[in-house]
This record gives sequence, C-alpha cells and structure tokens, in this order.
Amino acid sequence: MSTGYLVVPEGADYEALSLPVLSQNKGDGPRLLITGGNHGNELEGPLVARRLIDWLPEAQICGMVTIVPELNPLAVQAWTRNTPVDGKNLNREFPGRADGSVSERIADAITRVLLPIADTIFDLHSFGPKWDIPPSVILHPIADANLMAKAVRMAEGFKLPVTLVWEHNETAGMFDTVAHNQGKVLLCTEFGGGTVGANDLAIYEAGVRNALIALGLVDGKAEPPIFRQKKSSRTLETLTSDELRSPARGIFEPRCSVLEEVKQGDLIGVLRSMESLSAGPIEIYSPTSSIIYGIRSGGYVETNGELAYLARSLKR
Amino acid sequence: MSTGYLVVPEGADYEALSLPVLSQNKGDGPRLLITGGNHGNELEGPLVARRLIDWLPEAQICGMVTIVPELNPLAVQAWTRNTPVDGKNLNREFPGRADGSVSERIADAITRVLLPIADTIFDLHSFGPKWDIPPSVILHPIADANLMAKAVRMAEGFKLPVTLVWEHNETAGMFDTVAHNQGKVLLCTEFGGGTVGANDLAIYEAGVRNALIALGLVDGKAEPPIFRQKKSSRTLETLTSDELRSPARGIFEPRCSVLEEVKQGDLIGVLRSMESLSAGPIEIYSPTSSIIYGIRSGGYVETNGELAYLARSLKR
Repeated sequence: MSTGYLVVPEGADYEALSLPVLSQNKGDGPRLLITGGNHGNELEGPLVARRLIDWLPEAQICGMVTIVPELNPLAVQAWTRNTPVDGKNLNREFPGRADGSVSERIADAITRVLLPIADTIFDLHSFGPKWDIPPSVILHPIADANLMAKAVRMAEGFKLPVTLVWEHNETAGMFDTVAHNQGKVLLCTEFGGGTVGANDLAIYEAGVRNALIALGLVDGKAEPPIFRQKKSSRTLETLTSDELRSPARGIFEPRCSVLEEVKQGDLIGVLRSMESLSAGPIEIYSPTSSIIYGIRSGGYVETNGELAYLARSLKR
Repeated sequence: MSTGYLVVPEGADYEALSLPVLSQNKGDGPRLLITGGNHGNELEGPLVARRLIDWLPEAQICGMVTIVPELNPLAVQAWTRNTPVDGKNLNREFPGRADGSVSERIADAITRVLLPIADTIFDLHSFGPKWDIPPSVILHPIADANLMAKAVRMAEGFKLPVTLVWEHNETAGMFDTVAHNQGKVLLCTEFGGGTVGANDLAIYEAGVRNALIALGLVDGKAEPPIFRQKKSSRTLETLTSDELRSPARGIFEPRCSVLEEVKQGDLIGVLRSMESLSAGPIEIYSPTSSIIYGIRSGGYVETNGELAYLARSLKR
C-alpha cells in the first residue's frame, strides 16, 4: 500500500494542488479507481472513500485499487458544487487543459495520470442539498452496446435500491464520457437528501463493498442494504422527457416521496408562488405512470427548473 | 380575512419591498403573529405558513391571526441564511433601524408595524442544510420567570418530539429578545435535515395546528405527530457547555442519530482531516450522558465549529 499525491500544477489563477492518493497493487485483477469530491457539496463520497481506506488495505485480495477522496478540494472546502476560484463545474471540464484554469488543470491531471491506470472507475457523488433521491448507482447511456451491457451488470453489483440509466442531454465534458470513450466503465454512485447521516453512510459503504465483491477484489457475500425498511434493488431508466419542470418561480412543496409509484394524474407536489397570497398553489401532476426517482427538496425554483425526475423499469 | 403588504421602505442599498401579509380578526382571543422566511435557506416556514393560509380562514374561531410567510424574501429567493444585499443575518438585527441597510429596515418594519398587534409570535424556522435535528419548538431562557413558565407551557402545546430550552450566548438582536422585552411570548419552530420533504411538512403543520388548538384559536384534538415510528414529546434543555466543537478542520462523519441517548465516552462521530491520508480519523466522544439534539450533517467544518448539540431533560 502506498500513499502519495496527485499534483495539479500551478497556473495563472491558483497555486499548485496536491491531492492525496492511496494505491494498492495486489497483482492480476481489476484495476479500479475510486474518486470522491468531484462536486464540493457532496460529502458522502470523500467520507466513504476514507472509510474504504480504513479497511481495504487488509481486505483487498487481488488487482489494483487507487483511491482519491477529494478530486476538487477547493470546492469541498467551500461546500460548493463548482470550484470557487474559476466558477467551473469540474465534471463538465473533462478531459481538461494543462494550461487552463484550475478546474481544467484538475481534469487534465486526472485524465493524464489517473485514468490510464484504471479499467473501471467509481466516481462517488451525492445529489447535493436540494434533492431527495434514493441510494443509487447511475450511468449515462453508452453507444457501444457491449460496454453498456457490461456497465449495467457492474452497476447492479452494488445492490443498491436503484440502478439507473440516465439519459442526459449535456454529457460533454463529463468524467464518464472521457472514460467511456476509452472503453472503460465509469459508474457514479448517487445519494440524495442533502444531509450526511450515519445510516446513509452505512448504506453507501455497503453498496461500494458489494461492488468490490462483485469485481472479485475483496471476499464476502453481497447483500442489498436496508433502505426505508426494505431490502430491494431495481433497475430503472429516466429519459430527458421524464424531467418534470416548473411552470413558474416559487418554492416547491413535495407531496410524494422517492421510490413511490404514481399513476398518470397523481399529485406530485405543489408550487407556491410567494409574491402574492391570493395566487393559489399550482398543482403539479404526473404526466405518466412512473416511479418517482428524484424530488426537489430545497432551494427557490426558477421557471423551467427541475421539480422531479420520473423513472420506469429499464427495457433491455 | 384580508390580504395586504407590509412595506419596507426604500433605502440607499435597495428598493422598497412589499411583504405579503394575511390577517384575520374574529374578535376576542389571542393575537397571534406567524412568520416564516426569517432565514432564507429554511423553506419549511414559508411553506407551512402558506398551508395555514389554505385552511385557517375557515377554521379560526376567535382572536386575531396575522401571517407573513416570508420575512426576508431576498434571502429566500437566494436560498441563503443571510440577506445577499447587505450580508446581514436578519435575526441579529432586531429591533432594526429605519435608516439602516435593507436587513435593518426589514427588522424595523416588523418591530414597528407587526409586533405591536400581537401578544404571541411563532417564528417558523428550520435548521438549514448543514444540520440534522428533530422537529422541535425552541425558546431561549427568559429572565421573567412567569413569562418563561408561560412560554414553556405554550411550546409544549405543539406536542412536537422536542420542546427545547436553548441557552445561547448571542441573543442580542434576535426577534425573540425584542418580543420578550415587551412581555410577549415568541417561540421558534425548528426542523432539521436540509431537505423539505412531504412527511416533515406534515409533522411541522401538525405541530403548528396543535399549538393553535392549545391557544383556543381553532377547534380540534391535539395529537403528537409520528416521527420515526414514535408518538412522543419531551422537554429538554441545552446549555452553552453542551456544544460539542471540532478540534480540527475537516469533514464530520456522524456515528449517531438525533434523539439517541448516549453515555459518557460513547462515540458521537469521527472527524476526517482531508489534507493527508495518513492522518487517522479523530474520534469525537460524548463528554457526558446526554440526548443528541442536533448533529452536524453537511459542510466543511472549521476548527472550533459546532459538531453536535447535546441536551438533557429540563430541570423545572
């Protein structure tokens, strides 16, 4: 086992960064890279990465595992999604630029130094403080059908409550896209709810441990963790047409919970325009029979802002 | 029933604001003011205020109720604790200044126009996105023992999981302090967890309805709402010496949940210094036998930042 630093060189806007890295090589086997702190207001990832570092050195039986708990320490310390220095979303800057701003330089260092040593990447996210979603592993559709099938199988190995195939219009610059283009599997774990809690962290860690067992990197028996009194795993997909958007500015009042099944016409929530008390609530209904994947749970919503993500069973 | 606006006059830093106000006078009885949105990243208050406006006009049987869903619309729209224009915490600016910055002018308008027409104030807060706490009604100690006893009784009328007497070193400038100095009862409802969820809103609304029943403003039977599978209410106190503070910078990983009873020496959580992977976790233990009232659940923690609030049964 070795610990070291990934150095992101100094640039015009900020000094050099040293990102702590742990690496352990136990011979033939999968070469896995685990990263956290891609977005700074998603703290589950850095914490779960640190918990892995507590037990993985003993538990790993083969292959190579590299762990970087904080890809973007500037954003983590500021508890912001984007990097405070240049205002950029690191996960839209891949593959990065060596002579760019600090987010671009971080992306460049990851792409050049870390990506080549891995065939599989788990990028540990959570959904930030404005959304409620169930513990999930998500992936965006991959053009190569074989790689896609392999990625879905690997995602289901987490045995988390939801495996989600997420159709997304803006994947340019994502870490996923760069990895997929190189024929590697990149999966994102996602946890909702804003707050970091003891129970949620235990579920998150159990999911990652299950995936390590499925990869053969550690011994053990994979079990779905208990979420809301249930042990279950389902594989869903959400399309861009499944985004429910807000017809007006206001505060959203959820009237349903994640993983609830709704029928066409069921009430999802109510939008409260706060400018006038005589304006009644705007009721938001489900346009189709669906499963609620994500529900807005904080922040002032602008017109056309997302209120909910609907989902349905993945067609294979 | 009448709706109107509380006008906060224009000043050097910002234009005039019009805060929507609902008022209903049904003769003799308590004169209650209900306010939300004192802090802008606590959206439960504005939402519960709007839900009250949906049913109170029919349900109110006596007295006068005035509702202002958003005391600080600038902060609510920005989803920030403080007012973005002047960077001030509205709840430290009371009684305010007519010729001050916009936060001071809001406080002044509330103190001059709204406070005189009420004998009781419910200021609907939540704990912001970085803390987990149970649904509670809190009050700071009041020097006048009779007023204090009356306030505790009224707080217990919410029948929420916790009624909390909170010793606080910095009460200057709080809305509470100004109200108490005028012999009025001001209670704050507090909800933790960052996210606004359907279940939490139902508990919050039930608590406020219980308090309205206890005041005789509406008919009905008060029932403790169900929180984590339990129906119970307890009255606690937390002292300034019950604040557990961080020995270093890092990310806090909670290892316990709110309302858990801990003994002296029990593990509360673990602080992860993120600068080096060889630095082990710093374990945080409970210094006394206590009940966990609040636990840090998000955001990077600075040295000496609060990690937890311990509590114990109120001595009467």
